[in-house]
Amino acid sequence: MISIVIIGLGNIGTHLYKAFNSADGFTVSQLYNRTQNKLNAFPKALNSTTDLSKLIEADVYIIATSDDSIDTISSALPFTNKLVVHTSGSVPIHALANKNRKGSFYPLQTFSNDTPINFKEVPICIEAQNTSDLLVLQNLAEKLSNKVFHITSEQRKSMHLAAVFANNFTNHMYYIAEQICKENNVPFTILSPLLKETAQKLDSLSPYNAQTGPAKRNDIGTIDRHLKELTNTSYKEIYTAISKSITNTYEKKL
Amino acid sequence: MISIVIIGLGNIGTHLYKAFNSADGFTVSQLYNRTQNKLNAFPKALNSTTDLSKLIEADVYIIATSDDSIDTISSALPFTNKLVVHTSGSVPIHALANKNRKGSFYPLQTFSNDTPINFKEVPICIEAQNTSDLLVLQNLAEKLSNKVFHITSEQRKSMHLAAVFANNFTNHMYYIAEQICKENNVPFTILSPLLKETAQKLDSLSPYNAQTGPAKRNDIGTIDRHLKELTNTSYKEIYTAISKSITNTYEKKL
Repeated sequence: MISIVIIGLGNIGTHLYKAFNSADGFTVSQLYNRTQNKLNAFPKALNSTTDLSKLIEADVYIIATSDDSIDTISSALPFTNKLVVHTSGSVPIHALANKNRKGSFYPLQTFSNDTPINFKEVPICIEAQNTSDLLVLQNLAEKLSNKVFHITSEQRKSMHLAAVFANNFTNHMYYIAEQICKENNVPFTILSPLLKETAQKLDSLSPYNAQTGPAKRNDIGTIDRHLKELTNTSYKEIYTAISKSITNTYEKKL
Repeated sequence: MISIVIIGLGNIGTHLYKAFNSADGFTVSQLYNRTQNKLNAFPKALNSTTDLSKLIEADVYIIATSDDSIDTISSALPFTNKLVVHTSGSVPIHALANKNRKGSFYPLQTFSNDTPINFKEVPICIEAQNTSDLLVLQNLAEKLSNKVFHITSEQRKSMHLAAVFANNFTNHMYYIAEQICKENNVPFTILSPLLKETAQKLDSLSPYNAQTGPAKRNDIGTIDRHLKELTNTSYKEIYTAISKSITNTYEKKL
Protein backbone atom coordinates (compact mmCIF):
# COMPACT_ATOMS: atom_id res chain seq x y z
CA MET A 1 0.00 0.00 0.00
CA ILE A 2 1.58 3.27 -1.10
CA SER A 3 0.75 6.24 1.12
CA ILE A 4 0.34 9.67 -0.40
CA VAL A 5 0.19 13.20 0.96
CA ILE A 6 -1.37 15.81 -1.33
CA ILE A 7 -0.06 19.31 -0.82
CA GLY A 8 -2.34 21.99 -2.28
CA LEU A 9 -6.03 21.48 -3.11
CA GLY A 10 -6.65 23.61 -6.17
CA ASN A 11 -8.11 22.05 -9.35
CA ILE A 12 -5.35 19.47 -9.89
CA GLY A 13 -4.95 18.50 -6.22
CA THR A 14 -8.70 18.01 -5.83
CA HIS A 15 -9.03 15.92 -9.01
CA LEU A 16 -6.02 13.81 -7.96
CA TYR A 17 -7.55 13.24 -4.54
CA LYS A 18 -10.80 12.04 -6.13
CA ALA A 19 -8.94 9.79 -8.57
CA PHE A 20 -6.70 8.23 -5.88
CA ASN A 21 -9.69 7.79 -3.64
CA SER A 22 -11.58 5.69 -6.17
CA ALA A 23 -8.60 3.49 -7.13
CA ASP A 24 -7.00 0.59 -5.25
CA GLY A 25 -3.48 0.02 -3.99
CA PHE A 26 -2.72 3.27 -2.22
CA THR A 27 -4.10 5.55 0.41
CA VAL A 28 -4.22 9.31 0.75
CA SER A 29 -2.93 9.66 4.31
CA GLN A 30 -3.05 13.45 4.59
CA LEU A 31 -4.11 16.63 2.83
CA TYR A 32 -2.37 19.97 3.19
CA ASN A 33 -3.74 23.32 2.14
CA ARG A 34 -2.56 26.83 3.05
CA THR A 35 -6.09 27.83 4.08
CA GLN A 36 -8.63 25.85 6.09
CA ASN A 37 -11.73 26.66 3.99
CA LYS A 38 -10.68 24.39 1.08
CA LEU A 39 -10.00 21.54 3.53
CA ASN A 40 -13.54 21.79 4.90
CA ALA A 41 -14.84 20.41 1.61
CA PHE A 42 -13.09 17.05 2.27
CA PRO A 43 -14.21 14.19 4.56
CA LYS A 44 -13.69 15.10 8.24
CA ALA A 45 -12.17 11.68 8.99
CA LEU A 46 -9.23 12.52 6.75
CA ASN A 47 -6.04 13.80 8.35
CA SER A 48 -5.61 17.35 7.10
CA THR A 49 -3.50 20.36 8.05
CA THR A 50 -2.68 23.96 7.16
CA ASP A 51 0.76 23.65 8.75
CA LEU A 52 3.63 22.20 6.72
CA SER A 53 5.56 21.32 9.89
CA LYS A 54 2.76 18.87 10.75
CA LEU A 55 3.09 16.73 7.62
CA ILE A 56 3.16 13.05 8.46
CA GLU A 57 5.24 10.13 7.16
CA ALA A 58 4.29 8.92 3.64
CA ASP A 59 5.78 7.25 0.56
CA VAL A 60 5.03 10.05 -1.89
CA TYR A 61 4.39 13.77 -1.39
CA ILE A 62 2.58 15.42 -4.29
CA ILE A 63 2.95 19.20 -4.48
CA ALA A 64 -0.03 20.46 -6.51
CA THR A 65 0.33 24.16 -5.79
CA SER A 66 0.98 27.07 -8.15
CA ASP A 67 4.25 26.96 -10.11
CA ASP A 68 5.71 29.88 -8.19
CA SER A 69 5.34 28.28 -4.78
CA ILE A 70 6.89 24.87 -5.59
CA ASP A 71 10.34 26.10 -4.59
CA THR A 72 9.22 27.61 -1.26
CA ILE A 73 7.00 24.72 -0.27
CA SER A 74 9.50 22.01 -1.12
CA SER A 75 12.13 23.89 0.94
CA ALA A 76 9.76 24.13 3.90
CA LEU A 77 9.05 20.38 4.10
CA PRO A 78 10.03 19.08 7.56
CA PHE A 79 11.82 15.93 6.39
CA THR A 80 14.60 14.72 4.07
CA ASN A 81 15.24 11.92 1.57
CA LYS A 82 11.57 11.33 0.76
CA LEU A 83 10.04 11.15 -2.73
CA VAL A 84 8.59 14.60 -3.46
CA VAL A 85 6.97 15.28 -6.84
CA HIS A 86 5.19 18.26 -8.32
CA THR A 87 2.35 18.33 -10.86
CA SER A 88 3.46 21.30 -12.94
CA GLY A 89 3.84 21.22 -16.70
CA SER A 90 6.34 24.02 -16.93
CA VAL A 91 8.60 23.62 -13.87
CA PRO A 92 11.67 21.31 -14.09
CA ILE A 93 12.20 18.82 -11.26
CA HIS A 94 15.42 20.56 -10.22
CA ALA A 95 13.24 23.42 -8.93
CA LEU A 96 12.35 21.14 -6.03
CA ALA A 97 14.54 21.54 -2.91
CA ASN A 98 17.62 19.28 -2.84
CA LYS A 99 16.92 17.74 0.55
CA ASN A 100 14.40 15.23 -0.87
CA ARG A 101 14.30 12.88 -3.89
CA LYS A 102 12.71 14.72 -6.80
CA GLY A 103 10.10 13.75 -9.33
CA SER A 104 7.20 14.91 -11.44
CA PHE A 105 3.67 13.57 -11.79
CA TYR A 106 2.01 15.67 -14.49
CA PRO A 107 -1.52 14.82 -15.65
CA LEU A 108 -1.89 16.47 -19.07
CA GLN A 109 -5.51 17.53 -19.02
CA THR A 110 -7.57 20.63 -18.44
CA PHE A 111 -9.12 20.58 -14.98
CA SER A 112 -12.09 22.62 -13.87
CA ASN A 113 -13.47 21.92 -10.44
CA ASP A 114 -17.02 21.35 -11.69
CA THR A 115 -16.33 18.98 -14.56
CA PRO A 116 -15.70 15.29 -13.72
CA ILE A 117 -12.72 13.73 -15.47
CA ASN A 118 -12.26 10.16 -16.70
CA PHE A 119 -8.70 9.72 -15.46
CA LYS A 120 -8.23 6.48 -17.43
CA GLU A 121 -7.92 8.62 -20.58
CA VAL A 122 -5.69 11.31 -19.08
CA PRO A 123 -2.03 11.02 -20.15
CA ILE A 124 0.17 11.12 -17.05
CA CYS A 125 3.79 12.16 -17.58
CA ILE A 126 6.22 10.96 -14.93
CA GLU A 127 9.86 11.67 -14.17
CA ALA A 128 12.19 10.76 -11.29
CA GLN A 129 15.90 10.85 -10.47
CA ASN A 130 16.31 7.11 -10.03
CA THR A 131 14.70 3.93 -11.28
CA SER A 132 13.09 2.81 -8.04
CA ASP A 133 11.31 6.16 -7.61
CA LEU A 134 10.26 6.06 -11.26
CA LEU A 135 8.73 2.63 -10.64
CA VAL A 136 6.77 3.92 -7.65
CA LEU A 137 5.40 6.76 -9.78
CA GLN A 138 4.66 4.40 -12.67
CA ASN A 139 2.78 2.10 -10.31
CA LEU A 140 0.80 5.10 -9.05
CA ALA A 141 0.13 6.50 -12.53
CA GLU A 142 -0.93 3.16 -14.03
CA LYS A 143 -3.57 2.73 -11.35
CA LEU A 144 -5.15 5.99 -12.47
CA SER A 145 -4.59 6.03 -16.21
CA ASN A 146 -4.03 3.82 -19.26
CA LYS A 147 -1.66 6.39 -20.72
CA VAL A 148 1.58 6.76 -18.81
CA PHE A 149 4.63 8.41 -20.39
CA HIS A 150 8.22 8.84 -19.18
CA ILE A 151 8.98 12.45 -20.05
CA THR A 152 12.07 14.53 -19.22
CA SER A 153 11.80 18.00 -17.68
CA GLU A 154 12.87 19.47 -21.03
CA GLN A 155 10.19 17.57 -22.97
CA ARG A 156 7.56 18.40 -20.37
CA LYS A 157 8.36 22.08 -20.68
CA SER A 158 7.78 22.04 -24.44
CA MET A 159 4.69 19.87 -24.06
CA HIS A 160 3.27 22.41 -21.67
CA LEU A 161 3.90 25.17 -24.20
CA ALA A 162 2.19 23.04 -26.87
CA ALA A 163 -0.75 22.57 -24.50
CA VAL A 164 -1.07 26.33 -24.03
CA PHE A 165 -1.70 26.62 -27.77
CA ALA A 166 -3.89 23.52 -28.03
CA ASN A 167 -6.00 24.19 -24.95
CA ASN A 168 -5.75 27.71 -23.48
CA PHE A 169 -5.56 29.53 -26.80
CA THR A 170 -8.15 27.28 -28.42
CA ASN A 171 -10.52 28.07 -25.57
CA HIS A 172 -9.98 31.78 -26.15
CA MET A 173 -10.89 31.24 -29.82
CA TYR A 174 -14.16 29.73 -28.55
CA TYR A 175 -14.65 32.74 -26.30
CA ILE A 176 -14.18 35.21 -29.16
CA ALA A 177 -16.56 33.14 -31.33
CA GLU A 178 -19.13 33.28 -28.54
CA GLN A 179 -18.77 37.07 -28.24
CA ILE A 180 -19.33 37.49 -31.99
CA CYS A 181 -22.42 35.26 -31.81
CA LYS A 182 -23.83 37.19 -28.85
CA GLU A 183 -23.39 40.55 -30.59
CA ASN A 184 -25.38 39.22 -33.52
CA ASN A 185 -28.10 37.26 -31.72
CA VAL A 186 -26.89 33.91 -32.99
CA PRO A 187 -27.01 31.04 -30.44
CA PHE A 188 -23.42 29.93 -29.73
CA THR A 189 -24.66 26.31 -29.56
CA ILE A 190 -24.93 26.35 -33.38
CA LEU A 191 -21.14 26.16 -33.36
CA SER A 192 -20.96 23.23 -30.95
CA PRO A 193 -20.83 20.36 -33.53
CA LEU A 194 -18.18 22.29 -35.46
CA LEU A 195 -15.97 22.68 -32.38
CA LYS A 196 -16.17 18.98 -31.57
CA GLU A 197 -15.56 17.90 -35.16
CA THR A 198 -12.51 20.18 -35.35
CA ALA A 199 -10.90 18.27 -32.45
CA GLN A 200 -12.27 14.85 -33.50
CA LYS A 201 -10.91 15.19 -37.03
CA LEU A 202 -7.34 14.87 -35.73
CA ASP A 203 -7.91 11.15 -35.20
CA SER A 204 -7.76 10.73 -38.96
CA LEU A 205 -6.10 13.89 -40.32
CA SER A 206 -3.02 15.89 -39.32
CA PRO A 207 -3.70 19.55 -38.41
CA TYR A 208 -1.78 20.44 -41.58
CA ASN A 209 -4.24 18.51 -43.75
CA ALA A 210 -7.30 19.48 -41.70
CA GLN A 211 -6.86 23.21 -42.23
CA THR A 212 -9.61 25.02 -44.14
CA GLY A 213 -10.79 28.64 -44.37
CA PRO A 214 -10.00 31.99 -46.00
CA ALA A 215 -6.41 32.28 -44.70
CA LYS A 216 -5.44 28.88 -46.12
CA ARG A 217 -6.89 29.88 -49.52
CA ASN A 218 -5.26 33.32 -49.11
CA ASP A 219 -8.76 34.70 -49.85
CA ILE A 220 -7.92 38.37 -49.31
CA GLY A 221 -11.48 39.57 -50.04
CA THR A 222 -12.97 37.55 -47.18
CA ILE A 223 -10.09 38.35 -44.82
CA ASP A 224 -10.60 42.10 -45.42
CA ARG A 225 -14.35 41.83 -44.88
CA HIS A 226 -13.78 39.96 -41.62
CA LEU A 227 -11.29 42.54 -40.38
CA LYS A 228 -13.81 45.32 -41.11
CA GLU A 229 -16.51 43.40 -39.27
CA LEU A 230 -14.39 43.00 -36.12
CA THR A 231 -14.71 46.03 -33.86
CA ASN A 232 -12.55 44.79 -30.95
CA THR A 233 -8.89 45.77 -31.52
CA SER A 234 -7.48 42.69 -29.72
CA TYR A 235 -9.60 40.36 -31.88
CA LYS A 236 -8.43 42.17 -35.04
CA GLU A 237 -4.78 41.68 -33.97
CA ILE A 238 -5.37 38.00 -33.29
CA TYR A 239 -7.18 37.56 -36.61
CA THR A 240 -4.29 39.20 -38.48
CA ALA A 241 -1.51 37.31 -36.68
CA ILE A 242 -3.09 33.86 -37.10
CA SER A 243 -4.18 34.44 -40.71
CA LYS A 244 -0.65 35.54 -41.62
CA SER A 245 0.79 32.43 -39.98
CA ILE A 246 -1.68 30.13 -41.77
CA THR A 247 -1.02 31.76 -45.14
CA ASN A 248 2.76 31.44 -44.58
CA THR A 249 2.41 27.77 -43.62
CA TYR A 250 0.72 26.88 -46.90
CA GLU A 251 2.77 29.20 -49.13
CA LYS A 252 5.95 27.65 -47.80
CA LYS A 253 4.93 24.08 -48.31
CA LEU A 254 2.85 24.17 -51.51
CA MET B 1 -40.20 14.50 -54.96
CA ILE B 2 -37.96 17.59 -54.95
CA SER B 3 -35.34 17.61 -57.69
CA ILE B 4 -31.94 19.14 -57.04
CA VAL B 5 -29.04 20.23 -59.22
CA ILE B 6 -25.69 20.59 -57.45
CA ILE B 7 -23.36 23.14 -59.03
CA GLY B 8 -19.74 22.68 -57.95
CA LEU B 9 -18.25 19.50 -56.49
CA GLY B 10 -15.66 20.65 -54.01
CA ASN B 11 -15.82 19.49 -50.36
CA ILE B 12 -19.28 20.88 -49.61
CA GLY B 13 -20.87 19.89 -52.93
CA THR B 14 -19.56 16.34 -52.63
CA HIS B 15 -20.72 15.93 -49.02
CA LEU B 16 -24.15 17.35 -49.91
CA TYR B 17 -24.44 14.93 -52.82
CA LYS B 18 -23.67 11.98 -50.51
CA ALA B 19 -26.13 13.21 -47.89
CA PHE B 20 -28.96 13.79 -50.39
CA ASN B 21 -28.24 10.47 -51.98
CA SER B 22 -28.74 8.53 -48.75
CA ALA B 23 -31.93 10.39 -47.73
CA ASP B 24 -35.51 10.02 -49.04
CA GLY B 25 -37.87 12.51 -50.60
CA PHE B 26 -35.71 14.15 -53.23
CA THR B 27 -33.48 13.30 -56.12
CA VAL B 28 -30.21 14.76 -57.37
CA SER B 29 -31.08 15.16 -61.07
CA GLN B 30 -27.81 16.64 -62.27
CA LEU B 31 -24.28 17.55 -61.22
CA TYR B 32 -22.30 20.42 -62.69
CA ASN B 33 -18.58 20.99 -62.32
CA ARG B 34 -16.24 23.30 -64.25
CA THR B 35 -13.86 20.45 -64.97
CA GLN B 36 -14.65 16.88 -66.00
CA ASN B 37 -12.16 15.07 -63.74
CA LYS B 38 -14.17 15.71 -60.54
CA LEU B 39 -17.33 14.44 -62.26
CA ASN B 40 -15.63 11.15 -63.10
CA ALA B 41 -15.69 10.22 -59.43
CA PHE B 42 -19.52 10.10 -59.46
CA PRO B 43 -21.80 7.32 -60.77
CA LYS B 44 -21.82 7.24 -64.60
CA ALA B 45 -25.62 6.88 -64.67
CA LEU B 46 -25.96 10.35 -63.18
CA ASN B 47 -26.65 13.27 -65.51
CA SER B 48 -23.61 15.50 -65.28
CA THR B 49 -22.16 18.40 -67.26
CA THR B 50 -19.32 20.91 -67.43
CA ASP B 51 -21.50 23.35 -69.40
CA LEU B 52 -23.81 25.71 -67.50
CA SER B 53 -25.99 26.18 -70.59
CA LYS B 54 -26.89 22.49 -70.41
CA LEU B 55 -28.40 22.61 -66.90
CA ILE B 56 -31.75 20.83 -66.78
CA GLU B 57 -35.07 21.68 -65.11
CA ALA B 58 -35.11 21.22 -61.31
CA ASP B 59 -36.78 22.54 -58.16
CA VAL B 60 -33.65 23.74 -56.42
CA TYR B 61 -30.21 24.69 -57.72
CA ILE B 62 -27.47 24.57 -55.10
CA ILE B 63 -24.35 26.59 -55.93
CA ALA B 64 -21.51 25.06 -53.88
CA THR B 65 -18.61 26.82 -55.57
CA SER B 66 -16.05 29.25 -54.13
CA ASP B 67 -17.41 32.51 -52.71
CA ASP B 68 -15.89 34.60 -55.50
CA SER B 69 -17.62 32.72 -58.30
CA ILE B 70 -21.18 32.76 -56.88
CA ASP B 71 -21.95 36.03 -58.66
CA THR B 72 -20.61 34.90 -62.08
CA ILE B 73 -22.18 31.45 -61.95
CA SER B 74 -25.60 32.66 -60.83
CA SER B 75 -25.55 35.23 -63.65
CA ALA B 76 -24.66 32.55 -66.21
CA LEU B 77 -27.59 30.25 -65.35
CA PRO B 78 -29.72 29.66 -68.50
CA PHE B 79 -33.14 30.12 -66.83
CA THR B 80 -35.14 32.56 -64.70
CA ASN B 81 -37.49 32.52 -61.70
CA LYS B 82 -36.10 29.28 -60.24
CA LEU B 83 -35.00 28.75 -56.63
CA VAL B 84 -31.21 29.20 -56.58
CA VAL B 85 -29.31 28.94 -53.29
CA HIS B 86 -25.67 29.07 -52.35
CA THR B 87 -23.83 27.28 -49.53
CA SER B 88 -21.50 30.06 -48.47
CA GLY B 89 -21.19 31.29 -44.91
CA SER B 90 -19.92 34.72 -45.78
CA VAL B 91 -21.82 35.74 -48.94
CA PRO B 92 -25.26 37.44 -48.58
CA ILE B 93 -28.10 36.09 -50.72
CA HIS B 94 -28.32 39.38 -52.63
CA ALA B 95 -25.00 38.43 -54.27
CA LEU B 96 -26.98 35.93 -56.35
CA ALA B 97 -28.17 37.24 -59.75
CA ASN B 98 -31.61 38.89 -59.70
CA LYS B 99 -33.12 36.78 -62.44
CA ASN B 100 -33.85 33.85 -60.07
CA ARG B 101 -35.38 33.48 -56.57
CA LYS B 102 -32.58 33.63 -54.03
CA GLY B 103 -31.77 31.59 -50.98
CA SER B 104 -29.04 30.12 -48.83
CA PHE B 105 -28.44 26.57 -47.63
CA TYR B 106 -25.42 26.73 -45.33
CA PRO B 107 -24.26 23.60 -43.50
CA LEU B 108 -22.15 24.86 -40.61
CA GLN B 109 -19.49 22.19 -40.39
CA THR B 110 -15.91 21.61 -41.43
CA PHE B 111 -15.74 19.38 -44.47
CA SER B 112 -12.73 17.43 -45.59
CA ASN B 113 -13.16 15.07 -48.49
CA ASP B 114 -11.79 12.07 -46.65
CA THR B 115 -13.72 12.34 -43.38
CA PRO B 116 -17.31 11.07 -43.36
CA ILE B 117 -19.84 13.39 -41.73
CA ASN B 118 -22.95 12.53 -39.72
CA PHE B 119 -25.24 15.12 -41.32
CA LYS B 120 -27.96 14.61 -38.69
CA GLU B 121 -25.78 16.59 -36.27
CA VAL B 122 -24.75 19.32 -38.71
CA PRO B 123 -26.60 22.62 -38.15
CA ILE B 124 -28.06 23.78 -41.47
CA CYS B 125 -28.81 27.50 -41.76
CA ILE B 126 -31.43 28.42 -44.34
CA GLU B 127 -32.71 31.68 -45.78
CA ALA B 128 -35.06 32.57 -48.66
CA GLN B 129 -36.88 35.60 -50.02
CA ASN B 130 -40.39 34.21 -49.56
CA THR B 131 -42.17 31.73 -47.31
CA SER B 132 -42.85 29.03 -49.88
CA ASP B 133 -39.17 28.88 -50.88
CA LEU B 134 -38.18 28.83 -47.21
CA LEU B 135 -40.49 25.86 -46.71
CA VAL B 136 -38.88 23.99 -49.61
CA LEU B 137 -35.45 24.58 -48.08
CA GLN B 138 -36.70 23.64 -44.63
CA ASN B 139 -38.14 20.40 -46.00
CA LEU B 140 -34.79 19.68 -47.68
CA ALA B 141 -32.72 20.61 -44.61
CA GLU B 142 -34.85 18.59 -42.17
CA LYS B 143 -34.38 15.45 -44.24
CA LEU B 144 -30.62 15.80 -43.76
CA SER B 145 -30.29 17.23 -40.28
CA ASN B 146 -31.99 17.51 -36.88
CA LYS B 147 -30.69 21.05 -36.48
CA VAL B 148 -32.23 23.53 -38.89
CA PHE B 149 -32.03 27.28 -38.25
CA HIS B 150 -33.58 30.27 -40.05
CA ILE B 151 -30.71 32.72 -40.24
CA THR B 152 -30.52 36.09 -42.03
CA SER B 153 -27.63 36.99 -44.33
CA GLU B 154 -26.35 39.40 -41.68
CA GLN B 155 -26.41 36.73 -38.94
CA ARG B 156 -24.84 34.18 -41.25
CA LYS B 157 -21.99 36.54 -42.02
CA SER B 158 -21.17 36.98 -38.33
CA MET B 159 -21.61 33.26 -37.68
CA HIS B 160 -19.09 32.53 -40.39
CA LEU B 161 -16.63 34.93 -38.78
CA ALA B 162 -17.24 33.20 -35.43
CA ALA B 163 -16.58 29.85 -37.13
CA VAL B 164 -13.26 31.10 -38.51
CA PHE B 165 -12.13 31.62 -34.90
CA ALA B 166 -13.72 28.45 -33.53
CA ASN B 167 -12.60 26.14 -36.33
CA ASN B 168 -9.90 27.52 -38.67
CA PHE B 169 -7.91 29.33 -35.99
CA THR B 170 -8.36 26.51 -33.47
CA ASN B 171 -6.97 24.09 -36.03
CA HIS B 172 -3.93 26.33 -36.50
CA MET B 173 -3.41 26.24 -32.71
CA TYR B 174 -3.33 22.43 -33.05
CA TYR B 175 -0.83 22.76 -35.90
CA ILE B 176 1.51 24.96 -33.86
CA ALA B 177 1.19 22.57 -30.89
CA GLU B 178 2.13 19.70 -33.20
CA GLN B 179 5.18 21.59 -34.50
CA ILE B 180 6.38 22.26 -30.93
CA CYS B 181 5.92 18.57 -30.06
CA LYS B 182 7.82 17.44 -33.18
CA GLU B 183 10.77 19.72 -32.42
CA ASN B 184 11.04 18.17 -28.96
CA ASN B 185 10.38 14.50 -29.77
CA VAL B 186 7.09 14.41 -27.91
CA PRO B 187 4.30 12.41 -29.60
CA PHE B 188 1.48 14.84 -30.55
CA THR B 189 -1.07 12.14 -29.62
CA ILE B 190 -0.34 12.87 -25.92
CA LEU B 191 -2.34 16.06 -26.48
CA SER B 192 -5.31 14.34 -28.09
CA PRO B 193 -7.45 13.84 -24.91
CA LEU B 194 -6.79 17.46 -23.96
CA LEU B 195 -7.98 18.75 -27.34
CA LYS B 196 -11.18 16.77 -27.15
CA GLU B 197 -11.88 17.72 -23.54
CA THR B 198 -11.35 21.41 -24.40
CA ALA B 199 -14.22 21.23 -26.93
CA GLN B 200 -16.35 18.82 -24.87
CA LYS B 201 -16.17 21.01 -21.79
CA LEU B 202 -18.36 23.63 -23.49
CA ASP B 203 -21.39 21.38 -22.97
CA SER B 204 -21.24 22.27 -19.28
CA LEU B 205 -19.11 25.43 -19.04
CA SER B 206 -19.01 28.72 -20.96
CA PRO B 207 -15.66 29.51 -22.66
CA TYR B 208 -15.34 32.36 -20.14
CA ASN B 209 -15.49 29.93 -17.21
CA ALA B 210 -13.50 27.20 -18.93
CA GLN B 211 -10.40 29.37 -19.45
CA THR B 212 -7.22 28.26 -17.66
CA GLY B 213 -3.50 28.87 -18.18
CA PRO B 214 -0.74 31.43 -17.58
CA ALA B 215 -2.43 34.34 -19.45
CA LYS B 216 -5.59 34.05 -17.37
CA ARG B 217 -3.52 34.10 -14.17
CA ASN B 218 -1.40 36.91 -15.67
CA ASP B 219 1.59 34.69 -14.78
CA ILE B 220 4.28 36.88 -16.38
CA GLY B 221 7.13 34.54 -15.43
CA THR B 222 5.68 31.62 -17.41
CA ILE B 223 4.63 33.87 -20.32
CA ASP B 224 8.19 35.21 -20.62
CA ARG B 225 9.69 31.71 -20.47
CA HIS B 226 7.30 30.56 -23.21
CA LEU B 227 8.15 33.52 -25.44
CA LYS B 228 11.87 32.74 -25.05
CA GLU B 229 11.23 29.10 -25.90
CA LEU B 230 9.38 29.95 -29.15
CA THR B 231 11.80 30.42 -32.02
CA ASN B 232 9.26 31.02 -34.80
CA THR B 233 8.41 34.74 -35.08
CA SER B 234 4.82 34.15 -36.21
CA TYR B 235 4.16 31.86 -33.26
CA LYS B 236 5.63 34.46 -30.88
CA GLU B 237 3.29 37.13 -32.33
CA ILE B 238 0.28 34.84 -31.96
CA TYR B 239 1.29 33.92 -28.40
CA THR B 240 1.60 37.60 -27.47
CA ALA B 241 -1.66 38.72 -29.13
CA ILE B 242 -3.79 35.96 -27.62
CA SER B 243 -2.23 36.17 -24.15
CA LYS B 244 -2.85 39.94 -24.10
CA SER B 245 -6.46 39.42 -25.09
CA ILE B 246 -6.99 36.72 -22.42
CA THR B 247 -5.39 38.86 -19.70
CA ASN B 248 -7.58 41.83 -20.75
CA THR B 249 -10.71 39.69 -20.67
CA TYR B 250 -10.17 38.67 -17.05
CA GLU B 251 -8.80 41.99 -15.83
CA LYS B 252 -11.88 43.76 -17.16
CA LYS B 253 -14.38 41.43 -15.63
CA LEU B 254 -12.82 40.46 -12.30
